[in-house]
Amino acid sequence: MNSTYPSVLLENAVNEFASLPSVGRKTALRLVLHLLRRKPEEVEAFAGALTKLKNEVHYCRVCHNISDTELCPICASHNRDRQTVCVVENIQDVMQVEATGQFHGLYHVLGGIISPMDGIGPKDLEIDSLLARIEPEQIHEVILALPTTMEGDTTNFYIYRHLSNDHPEVRVTQIARGVAVGGELEYTDEVTLGRSILNRTEFVTN
Amino acid sequence: MNSTYPSVLLENAVNEFASLPSVGRKTALRLVLHLLRRKPEEVEAFAGALTKLKNEVHYCRVCHNISDTELCPICASHNRDRQTVCVVENIQDVMQVEATGQFHGLYHVLGGIISPMDGIGPKDLEIDSLLARIEPEQIHEVILALPTTMEGDTTNFYIYRHLSNDHPEVRVTQIARGVAVGGELEYTDEVTLGRSILNRTEFVTN
Repeated sequence: MNSTYPSVLLENAVNEFASLPSVGRKTALRLVLHLLRRKPEEVEAFAGALTKLKNEVHYCRVCHNISDTELCPICASHNRDRQTVCVVENIQDVMQVEATGQFHGLYHVLGGIISPMDGIGPKDLEIDSLLARIEPEQIHEVILALPTTMEGDTTNFYIYRHLSNDHPEVRVTQIARGVAVGGELEYTDEVTLGRSILNRTEFVTN
Repeated sequence: MNSTYPSVLLENAVNEFASLPSVGRKTALRLVLHLLRRKPEEVEAFAGALTKLKNEVHYCRVCHNISDTELCPICASHNRDRQTVCVVENIQDVMQVEATGQFHGLYHVLGGIISPMDGIGPKDLEIDSLLARIEPEQIHEVILALPTTMEGDTTNFYIYRHLSNDHPEVRVTQIARGVAVGGELEYTDEVTLGRSILNRTEFVTN
């Protein structure tokens, strides 16, 4: 479809949607025409939710997770294990870990990972603020839950080196890598399968 | 992922995106977090384009296509064949036909097709306004370009019956159905292939 839009207003709205990641021009047009069929107050609410979020959102001053308040609900909670911190790349990862219901400690959102190719160094991330939390908060364990990419490994190692130098008493762990629950060996890549053998655990009967 | 959003503002914005067709909650979250990383004025522009479109858009008073003006550029053009009208279901279809560069007449956007299941009858569509155009605009040919569904066939037949009754001098045609250009017989459904044999045309060498 070429760009013969019958309306400049329509074209502008399509351009905005098409600027979002993995939204093509055809999808953008479909979404805009869908909004056009909605009630004016619904479109107003849609637009309002975006600007309100952008203008009023906070980032927790401790863990840097997104929050409506200066201190996020997790950091403010009295029911969390305050001596364990899970280090993640971004906000989605916090939600993913929370959704498991298996973690009851605190988080630290780095806001990215070290990536020299993209010009992202340790100073661009919330690493210093992580190291600064250890002593005043009396943190006993730091769980690294970063992606298993070269950048993730680099970031893991950077954090590990600083923690083991400055706070040798802190336990540094990483999340287990292995064959997915329900996953078949046949469809598991060799690296993951190899790791799952090296990191095997005692067999327990439930 | 369950609904443990760390921020109500974030959740509201995700809800709005997830209300769009074929946008799930994970995709909605990804889009919202992408917008959060943009500059405030960019988010403002995104929201503004939507409300401006909704509040200021026109529909052409003749063909009912979307337009910035009371009369759309196609209806206002002096370079179109003003005696041929192509009847389509919606705005996207106008853009699709325009993109082919093969049609130089005018359009008529019905705004839907007859669908008793959805409670859409002829009076809910721009059919009367189509019939009313024939005489004053001296239209010679009406091309039906509606979908080949039961609803499309019903609508085609309804329009055809009224045209042949009231304006027997008008030629009523429909777009050709057949095997797609570049399409292989092996992967063409029988109905389409059957139609392509019934509607065969003279062989011409280019």
